[in-house]
Amino acid sequence: MEGYKSFLYFLVSSLVLGFTLVIFVLVWVLHYSDGLAWDGGNAEFNWHPVLIITGFIFIEGIAIIVYRLPWTWRCSKLLMKCIHAGLHLTAAILVVVALVAVFDYHNAKNIPNMYSLHSWVGLTVVICFFLQLVFSIIVYLLPCTPLSIRAAFMPIHVYSGLLLFGGVIATSLMGITEKLIFSLRNPAYSSLPPHAVFVNTLGLLIAVFGGLIVWITTRPGWKRPPEEQRPFLSNDNYDNTTEYSKEKSDVELNSEARKRNLKLDEAGQRSTM
Amino acid sequence: MEGYKSFLYFLVSSLVLGFTLVIFVLVWVLHYSDGLAWDGGNAEFNWHPVLIITGFIFIEGIAIIVYRLPWTWRCSKLLMKCIHAGLHLTAAILVVVALVAVFDYHNAKNIPNMYSLHSWVGLTVVICFFLQLVFSIIVYLLPCTPLSIRAAFMPIHVYSGLLLFGGVIATSLMGITEKLIFSLRNPAYSSLPPHAVFVNTLGLLIAVFGGLIVWITTRPGWKRPPEEQRPFLSNDNYDNTTEYSKEKSDVELNSEARKRNLKLDEAGQRSTM
Repeated sequence: MEGYKSFLYFLVSSLVLGFTLVIFVLVWVLHYSDGLAWDGGNAEFNWHPVLIITGFIFIEGIAIIVYRLPWTWRCSKLLMKCIHAGLHLTAAILVVVALVAVFDYHNAKNIPNMYSLHSWVGLTVVICFFLQLVFSIIVYLLPCTPLSIRAAFMPIHVYSGLLLFGGVIATSLMGITEKLIFSLRNPAYSSLPPHAVFVNTLGLLIAVFGGLIVWITTRPGWKRPPEEQRPFLSNDNYDNTTEYSKEKSDVELNSEARKRNLKLDEAGQRSTM
Repeated sequence: MEGYKSFLYFLVSSLVLGFTLVIFVLVWVLHYSDGLAWDGGNAEFNWHPVLIITGFIFIEGIAIIVYRLPWTWRCSKLLMKCIHAGLHLTAAILVVVALVAVFDYHNAKNIPNMYSLHSWVGLTVVICFFLQLVFSIIVYLLPCTPLSIRAAFMPIHVYSGLLLFGGVIATSLMGITEKLIFSLRNPAYSSLPPHAVFVNTLGLLIAVFGGLIVWITTRPGWKRPPEEQRPFLSNDNYDNTTEYSKEKSDVELNSEARKRNLKLDEAGQRSTM
């Protein structure tokens, strides 16, 4: 890997920052707000930021960069696809619970749903995220999908993934803004009490985390090498080649088709960002 | 150019959408709000969204994609750099006026400055934007800067530019959220009056505009070709070659250095996104 030390620096920074975001949102709801519960009150609403930041920002961020980890380059592509999809699915489940929490809270308090820009952009992002999830499972995990289709959709897959991640971050910053305006009355948000400073800082850290994930994802030298280069990644060529052959045998490719597959794989994997 | 029709479709869509954003923000402040003036009141504040959306979103968006216009590929790199920098400078001037408007309004109304997450993220983005502007002028417009430095910083330049553009969009969505919560009291924002629907729609369109600009910028086939390929872009080779030689003679490169320059230029121009 090109610039391995620099990669490690960015990876560790993003992991530390990701955990910091989760700790910050927990401190926010447990220390500055009314804790966590499922009672139709503020404590139920609080699941919304906790699950969005944990699932839709931290876990999603990790899902996006998981192919970049050089230690995984010896794992089969299929295994990595399953990990990538599994992390997205985990995020998806947390997002559904986060949405149920906020709708339930609104209904219990007779607060109208879906009026704010936060909710408009947020629901658009969630719908697109689920469409992307279903579409990507069909295209990249079903063995019957032609490899040419996989390669053709890869630039859109990568672009949509990063755009949705940016959309999640923008939506979460809007959500924080809304929540601080509505919940900080005495002292007011405008007097910048410690609560406001703390949550504003969380907002800034979310933006920095997004920047780190996008940087890691878009460095060409940090991409997972094309399949045909992988057997040379270590001295342990036998294991890699065996594993590689096994993966390909799953879809019963003959030698000619496999060659074409590798080229398409590379085209798809490296054609964008 | 690869996929010229597709490029045209995205370009026209982004231009139409960009003009629509400007029209929307003008309708917002002139029809739904108190118009435009410089009187310390709401009409002065209104310059803030108008100038941010016109300068920091629409003009910035055009500045980002200006190298992608295939009709400009016959123009010298130096001319294109000046247009790129000129558009950024125009945006910078509008942003400064937009900030003066909002600080002046806050001071006149005794509203505290710099307490909201919108202001924290926004000021961070503006400071980074100005640093990027000054740094880029030094690196890419001063003829004394070594070409190796230019190539080395190009990935950071492209990444920072797109990240800041994303930051501007996120900040503007937060700003719209704040403004609607504060200004819509009777009828309230939560009752979703036409004013709220209109400005929420503006917010969604801003996000779509951002998505279009990022798509256009990150398509590898739509990048300006490396300098050595440019004389072959049309039958009019003589004009291109003359212009090309003239540009290079500006920095008095000998043949060997020019060759290295082309390679570095290409590395820098195409090394990221």
